[in-house]
Amino acid sequence: MKAKREALTSLFRAMREGKVDEDIIDLLLLINSINGIYTTSSCSGRIGIIEEPALGAKPLSRWLIKVHREMTFEEAREALKKAEKGLIFLKSQPPIFHVVAEDIEKAKKLHELGLASGFKYTTFKVISKRYLVEINATEYLTAPLGRDGRVLIDDEYLSFALEVGNSMLMRSKGRLPRLGRNFRKLREELGEDELFYELAEKFEIKAR
Amino acid sequence: MKAKREALTSLFRAMREGKVDEDIIDLLLLINSINGIYTTSSCSGRIGIIEEPALGAKPLSRWLIKVHREMTFEEAREALKKAEKGLIFLKSQPPIFHVVAEDIEKAKKLHELGLASGFKYTTFKVISKRYLVEINATEYLTAPLGRDGRVLIDDEYLSFALEVGNSMLMRSKGRLPRLGRNFRKLREELGEDELFYELAEKFEIKAR
Repeated sequence: MKAKREALTSLFRAMREGKVDEDIIDLLLLINSINGIYTTSSCSGRIGIIEEPALGAKPLSRWLIKVHREMTFEEAREALKKAEKGLIFLKSQPPIFHVVAEDIEKAKKLHELGLASGFKYTTFKVISKRYLVEINATEYLTAPLGRDGRVLIDDEYLSFALEVGNSMLMRSKGRLPRLGRNFRKLREELGEDELFYELAEKFEIKAR
Repeated sequence: MKAKREALTSLFRAMREGKVDEDIIDLLLLINSINGIYTTSSCSGRIGIIEEPALGAKPLSRWLIKVHREMTFEEAREALKKAEKGLIFLKSQPPIFHVVAEDIEKAKKLHELGLASGFKYTTFKVISKRYLVEINATEYLTAPLGRDGRVLIDDEYLSFALEVGNSMLMRSKGRLPRLGRNFRKLREELGEDELFYELAEKFEIKAR
């Protein structure tokens, strides 16, 4: 799969540059070692505070803070001092994996695997002849905190909202081991991809 | 399509009982009149206040208020008086359509149609041999307001959060006419389904 070769090259380069979320590195290596599938953009889940200039103007949004673990109250307070313009949101998002499958049978297996691992918003898209499965969960928080530099909530609320957002993040991340077990079973079923090991060696990524 | 006959029967019954969101009735009739596709659960978009006993215990959640139009401040305040136990969230959700396609070609057209109509979270699932396309948008708000009967936000914040939630709802609903135009084009392409008109007549639903 030429596309897989390109995707793996891109992933291994990003890993060497420290650009891949550490807590999903093992999972990404596992998924990519499986025959007939590979990952594209994936995220280990995050909580952050973002400024959106206008509803829907996503490309112009800027994160005041974004972490892949629980956020502390102090971090949130500090980040809010940087708010200037637009709507300010506290956002909590679950881990999300985009996995390309080379045929519909594999796409269906991935879809079932995501759901069986507790990722209830697992869906897919067909793009050209490729099947892109999105393994996604339900724990999303999108809480407005203020606008145009003005924070409209007090410390008690910020602390509360952070607690809810952090709980959601931990809850969804808590399913990653189950996802890993299910992918290991899938690997036994579909087999290992020699291309993966060849490229891992070339990039000196510890893959076994 | 036996499944379509059952789905249409179910839809027409619900319409006669006033159980279908009024502002998507015409769109649902249009979509179902097209050959090879039909709708299952769909919603015209809503904003509401919900109580969730524990994170993830969705079946036990109860809505304190839920409307398919903008919510007023007074309505929100009144509803919050009913809060008792669990996490209280203000939730705003865009219109969402679930459309079954009889083959992958139609599913792909539906997928492109959803995206082209501005519904950027349009995806699909394969369930048995059926293709279920979910036409969904990005404007979701999930803001915690308090817990166990205690509201942790003041009137100014409630008013602000409602404004944001209402704007999101109006924004996503504002794409419905475009979705309608695109479905009309799809109907010209795929043709009309006589089964639809036959059942509409039987149930005395004005469909033309």
